[in-house]
Amino acid sequence: MAETLPPADDLGPPRETPLFGRLAIIGLGLIGSSVARAARRLNLAGEVVAIDADADVRARVSGLGFADRVEGDAAIGVAGADLIVLCVPVGACGPVAQAMAAGLKAGAIVSDVGSVKGAVVRDVAPHLPEGVHFVPAHPVAGTENSGPEAGFASLFLGRWCILTPPEGADEAAVARVQDFWEGMGSIVEIMTPQHHDIVLAITSHVPHLIAYNIVGTAADLEAVTRSEVIKFSAGGFRDFTRIAASDPTMWRDVFLNNREAVLEVLGRFNEDLAALARAIRWGDGTMLHEFFARSRTIRRGIVQIGQSVPYTDPPGGKTS
Amino acid sequence: MAETLPPADDLGPPRETPLFGRLAIIGLGLIGSSVARAARRLNLAGEVVAIDADADVRARVSGLGFADRVEGDAAIGVAGADLIVLCVPVGACGPVAQAMAAGLKAGAIVSDVGSVKGAVVRDVAPHLPEGVHFVPAHPVAGTENSGPEAGFASLFLGRWCILTPPEGADEAAVARVQDFWEGMGSIVEIMTPQHHDIVLAITSHVPHLIAYNIVGTAADLEAVTRSEVIKFSAGGFRDFTRIAASDPTMWRDVFLNNREAVLEVLGRFNEDLAALARAIRWGDGTMLHEFFARSRTIRRGIVQIGQSVPYTDPPGGKTS
Repeated sequence: MAETLPPADDLGPPRETPLFGRLAIIGLGLIGSSVARAARRLNLAGEVVAIDADADVRARVSGLGFADRVEGDAAIGVAGADLIVLCVPVGACGPVAQAMAAGLKAGAIVSDVGSVKGAVVRDVAPHLPEGVHFVPAHPVAGTENSGPEAGFASLFLGRWCILTPPEGADEAAVARVQDFWEGMGSIVEIMTPQHHDIVLAITSHVPHLIAYNIVGTAADLEAVTRSEVIKFSAGGFRDFTRIAASDPTMWRDVFLNNREAVLEVLGRFNEDLAALARAIRWGDGTMLHEFFARSRTIRRGIVQIGQSVPYTDPPGGKTS
Repeated sequence: MAETLPPADDLGPPRETPLFGRLAIIGLGLIGSSVARAARRLNLAGEVVAIDADADVRARVSGLGFADRVEGDAAIGVAGADLIVLCVPVGACGPVAQAMAAGLKAGAIVSDVGSVKGAVVRDVAPHLPEGVHFVPAHPVAGTENSGPEAGFASLFLGRWCILTPPEGADEAAVARVQDFWEGMGSIVEIMTPQHHDIVLAITSHVPHLIAYNIVGTAADLEAVTRSEVIKFSAGGFRDFTRIAASDPTMWRDVFLNNREAVLEVLGRFNEDLAALARAIRWGDGTMLHEFFARSRTIRRGIVQIGQSVPYTDPPGGKTS
């Protein structure tokens, strides 16, 4: 635990010269619009092209003013781009890669921000032409909000970003993507796609599944009204509801595309929970106390490395 | 959903005349010491007596200066008290009631702050002499911190407090306990002990059990290091760790004493989770999307009634 994250305060000054000439971002939701804002504010790219298949989103992005150009067609939008970042749900990465492939220039670097990496590598790599580099990335950052209005330039500041370059990836391309994320204030870690997917299954995917699940269980209880659930949520329940308000499409795709790791971790979770339930049924206070006392250690670690900042809504972000 | 909680800002001015002559608090942890601080600051009692069986806690409480008198013996401590509030773990309420009974004066009101109410009524009521009123209470408030140093006067401000008077309880006594909690800024709701226990099972007890459980599962995974779990906890996991850092003794007693309601809600949770796991295994994206989309409604309700303030450490509170 040598790594300590810097405090998430203000972004530094912009670079004197941009890292990339033209940056194309495909998908302008919370993450995509935050990358665009950060890249512009910090001068990480000379030109920012925003690409989105949704006409309504394109109109809103034009109004928000953080892109130099807004395009609907992926192949046209990526033309001449030096870095292309896919910011669409994981399940859309393959089709989008196929759609944009014809427009990619030689030497371009393609990256993404998906929460699953094995499936993205599997789906995207086959569509990329020879001479185009692929460096998948996953910024471990987000809020419960969605849409281009929800993004903000400091979303990645002080947050981890995991790169999962496939075997034999171009080292210079990996270094440039690392520079890009570090330029937005992230701390970069490199691992294999497979290891990423199991690490995220326990730190993110299964917690989200459980949070979604208990919110559903609460909504269906006949003996307790929804108003009561909401009123007394300060007792612990509300800690689960923030992450259970995340984007449903993104999360559907995460679970469909990280199935093996999620089901593996979930199996462990269920075994452990069965043991706790058994201890409750048989009144085994010693087991319960020991189990509960042990979890303080991990919490202490999280507090120490400063990941436990209170959740704050982004400036101007909607709460949906 | 007519109820709206006031913003949790400053406590108002102290009362001109106290509500109770002598207040005795038994158990000076986070909750007990917060009640003592609030009662003194707001002039809710003419005199505050702090009673704790632990000599070390008594010494620390003396040093903190929020009590007029510090006692080790419950029967001696409660002598002459008009309101006695048990702030010990639920499992200790019965023995403490027995120990203090001889010291209770006629007309005294006994209350508590336990997170389980059926078991507290069962364990405490038989020990109380004729003429002593029992009005159980549960302030739905807390932090992850423990001990007399962790308390603060505004802990209950803008938070719900549930009273569960047994059938036939003295109405004047119930009204005085309600005045006491409202005096500390709480919003009081009255329900039966049985209904309380099922409401809290879903809004607090099962969420805590699940949070404890997933922290345990994470700690035991061979494929993922503890350092990785901590580093990437911003992905969702850290939302669970705050409540999993709560006091182990308190929570052991909650689960041992609200067994039926907890196991009933947990059974529902497990059924729902099995359905989600099945949808993941069989790639049922439609089911997953519908399930995830639905949970935003409840989140919206929580945000609207203002229970979703960011978690902040109390002033001077330790993070353990």
